[in-house]
Amino acid sequence: MAEKLTKQSVDYPRWYQEVVLQAGLADYAPVKGCMIIKPYGYTLWENMQRELDRMFKETGHVNAYFPLLIPESFMKKEAEHVEGFSPELAVVTHAGGKQLEEPYVIRPTSETIIWDTYRKWIQSYRDLPLLINQWANVMRWEMRTRLFLRTTEFLWQEGHTAHATAEEAQDETLRMLEIYRRFAEDYMAVPVITGLKSEREKFAGAVSTYSIEALMGDRKALQAGTSHNLGQNFAKAFDVTFLNAEGEREHVWATSWGVSTRLIGAIVMAHGDDDGLILPPRLAPIQMVVVPIYRSDEEQETTVSAARALVEQLIRAGVRVHLDDRDQLRPGWKYAEWELKGVPIRVELGPRDVANASARLAFRVDREKRDVPLAELPALAQELLDETHRKLFDRALKFREENTFRVDSWEEFQERLDEPGGFLYAHWDGTSETEEAIQNATRATIRCIPLDDDLEDGVCVYSGKPSRRRVIFAKAY
Amino acid sequence: MAEKLTKQSVDYPRWYQEVVLQAGLADYAPVKGCMIIKPYGYTLWENMQRELDRMFKETGHVNAYFPLLIPESFMKKEAEHVEGFSPELAVVTHAGGKQLEEPYVIRPTSETIIWDTYRKWIQSYRDLPLLINQWANVMRWEMRTRLFLRTTEFLWQEGHTAHATAEEAQDETLRMLEIYRRFAEDYMAVPVITGLKSEREKFAGAVSTYSIEALMGDRKALQAGTSHNLGQNFAKAFDVTFLNAEGEREHVWATSWGVSTRLIGAIVMAHGDDDGLILPPRLAPIQMVVVPIYRSDEEQETTVSAARALVEQLIRAGVRVHLDDRDQLRPGWKYAEWELKGVPIRVELGPRDVANASARLAFRVDREKRDVPLAELPALAQELLDETHRKLFDRALKFREENTFRVDSWEEFQERLDEPGGFLYAHWDGTSETEEAIQNATRATIRCIPLDDDLEDGVCVYSGKPSRRRVIFAKAY
Repeated sequence: MAEKLTKQSVDYPRWYQEVVLQAGLADYAPVKGCMIIKPYGYTLWENMQRELDRMFKETGHVNAYFPLLIPESFMKKEAEHVEGFSPELAVVTHAGGKQLEEPYVIRPTSETIIWDTYRKWIQSYRDLPLLINQWANVMRWEMRTRLFLRTTEFLWQEGHTAHATAEEAQDETLRMLEIYRRFAEDYMAVPVITGLKSEREKFAGAVSTYSIEALMGDRKALQAGTSHNLGQNFAKAFDVTFLNAEGEREHVWATSWGVSTRLIGAIVMAHGDDDGLILPPRLAPIQMVVVPIYRSDEEQETTVSAARALVEQLIRAGVRVHLDDRDQLRPGWKYAEWELKGVPIRVELGPRDVANASARLAFRVDREKRDVPLAELPALAQELLDETHRKLFDRALKFREENTFRVDSWEEFQERLDEPGGFLYAHWDGTSETEEAIQNATRATIRCIPLDDDLEDGVCVYSGKPSRRRVIFAKAY
Repeated sequence: MAEKLTKQSVDYPRWYQEVVLQAGLADYAPVKGCMIIKPYGYTLWENMQRELDRMFKETGHVNAYFPLLIPESFMKKEAEHVEGFSPELAVVTHAGGKQLEEPYVIRPTSETIIWDTYRKWIQSYRDLPLLINQWANVMRWEMRTRLFLRTTEFLWQEGHTAHATAEEAQDETLRMLEIYRRFAEDYMAVPVITGLKSEREKFAGAVSTYSIEALMGDRKALQAGTSHNLGQNFAKAFDVTFLNAEGEREHVWATSWGVSTRLIGAIVMAHGDDDGLILPPRLAPIQMVVVPIYRSDEEQETTVSAARALVEQLIRAGVRVHLDDRDQLRPGWKYAEWELKGVPIRVELGPRDVANASARLAFRVDREKRDVPLAELPALAQELLDETHRKLFDRALKFREENTFRVDSWEEFQERLDEPGGFLYAHWDGTSETEEAIQNATRATIRCIPLDDDLEDGVCVYSGKPSRRRVIFAKAY
């Protein structure tokens, strides 16, 4: 704390790194590309986990736990999967003082070991659907890492479901995509676009990958969650079949879907400003902080005891509230610290406030100040937090709309991408060659083929060949 | 399911293995010594986590997350620690397609990487105490493994706290031991003895280790949780110092404490019988199962709709309840399955019960059957579950008392240990040599030096040398 943050406009990546470190979300680890998630960041993750887990369970999923280590040979059974993940694997070659006969890899994702297990668990259509989720750590040996956004080890959830029909698997894929969209918008206050990934960007081993895509404060895109229809790829690779109701043996249909601690990076970059984090109230570890203000011992007694009484009432009203009664620090210093940490609402309580039975609120989202009768605050609290959520979401949505462009020429594409950046809706001829050429020329990738967009005839911005619909290009994390 | 369990009296280890597999708690994994925690077992673990996590937070602890991998050199900084853990390490030598310059070990426990981090986080007495817990997977390459009791990978929590004084560290060590005792007794319904470990049995790197020790159904002991006073050992090894209030630089005082998925094994073996699991109601994934009974379509309609209404009311009363309305299975088959899975209370609803506005309860713990007015059941449910908890605990306590012996001669020691087994309170001369000799002769180890036992002069059962107090010997898992 105490150090001034680099301004976003001066050096956005540096601002990001400083705010993550100084706000106490995470720290660097003495292990290449890994991070330590500090208590403040981990509490945010716990709040995210709790809501996601509830949403998964409400849709019939249960949790289980599969091994961290995967026999190396398993990774090779699905051709695209091994190609996609091989370069990133961490390998255990020795254990218990001996060299292993077959090395193990640390899971980069668990499709292979889970589908090897499902072969034993699934015999008949009565065993389906199998709707399992796992909360776990995974490891991908990345070259360039960034706190939360891309770390060698990260925490995530991975759902792995098995179904009797292709239709059910597709329904599940879209159901979980929709849960991710709702979570991003209703809890993170981050508007997202749901869409289909191109062949080149899809998960290694999937038939099709869907994602939620968010726009960050620097106008770059962030893939915030993915849901894969795996078809029968893993069932065939691991020979998982079932007897259907007609007594015929069929391969099982599959999905997998996941979100990770990367979402914390999304929250930081979607909402943060030059003074630090702005946390969405439904996930914030501390929703309100109460700061008593005083100049004399007498005033201290008055304001601190009023603050204590208020905090107790707020706790009873279900608010995650913190009393900052540290005596050695000035109020202004405390304000700056809680702003850095992104606490949605600060409650200032001075002697005059107490005398007036009033509290002065300061909203982190827009710096509005508002006086509220002390007695009414507990009953009002949830509404004020909801109001803050809406403001945050609306601002992020407005920002995205202002930075979304329909571009129809290659010149415009390049110019817009350069300045200001953002989401470019453009026609594309549907080939991986063009996609690659565009990426090589501009570093932009296809974020997704949006689900809610109408078909529209046009010509590819790059090749001039015919196109049936626009897709979204952007520079991305 | 469906296969008959081996009787406990015939082959207890085999009974254990069968009940874990058949009740759906866990499955074998294709990775040496690892297991897959199945949804039923994982839900039990989630329920345990929720209560423990609450108890940790109520005592001021917060969660954080440290890396899975630890640089090999870290393990060598504390002399006893490296000696204790080296033989069990899994080592990552390759990653990202290359050989690593320094290998990483997969954490067997996180003291080293956490104390390396605390060096950065702790500067002054104002940074203390630091009360952090981590929920994580760890890995110890064990030679002989057993589902839940000893697996290569297991899930656990590990608390790592830092304090300004030796007294505070000792207080914390005992505070967490007491939380473990309360959790074991009030949630698992497993009575435990709290005590100090001998030098030979203490944690590698601790000044002193305390444990909770439980007696299993085969009269063997299970160490169910440990709390370590680490003194300044890790602070010195990792050079973690702080400025005290007097402006002097001192090394920090430490504790660590943990419980793991091993506790699931403790529940299985403390309560289970020849028909399967008996789960403690406060942790059971399903606390009550409702089984409608019918012979005709008309009866089916009556009983299933009454069952549905009851289940809704029970859910509203906060009961984790399951409706077993599977049509293809006979009630007797369902009863056997839910007995195997250890559901505390079964509710049978036949046409006559519905007509009488009554439900027949069957208690798993003692097979008591009791008719209860249907309308009163939701309001009674928590009380009935509490009653079941008490019965389970009391039975386990009685069993332990019946299998606890004060032995005063070496002959008696050997005889009792052989038949029936149990906890032997015996005098010991306090030397590691005698402890080792007793273990070599009988396979019994000192489980602990109990905290609540009076001093009593006597002579060592093995060496005849003077002793000031009795300690507990037992064969152990």
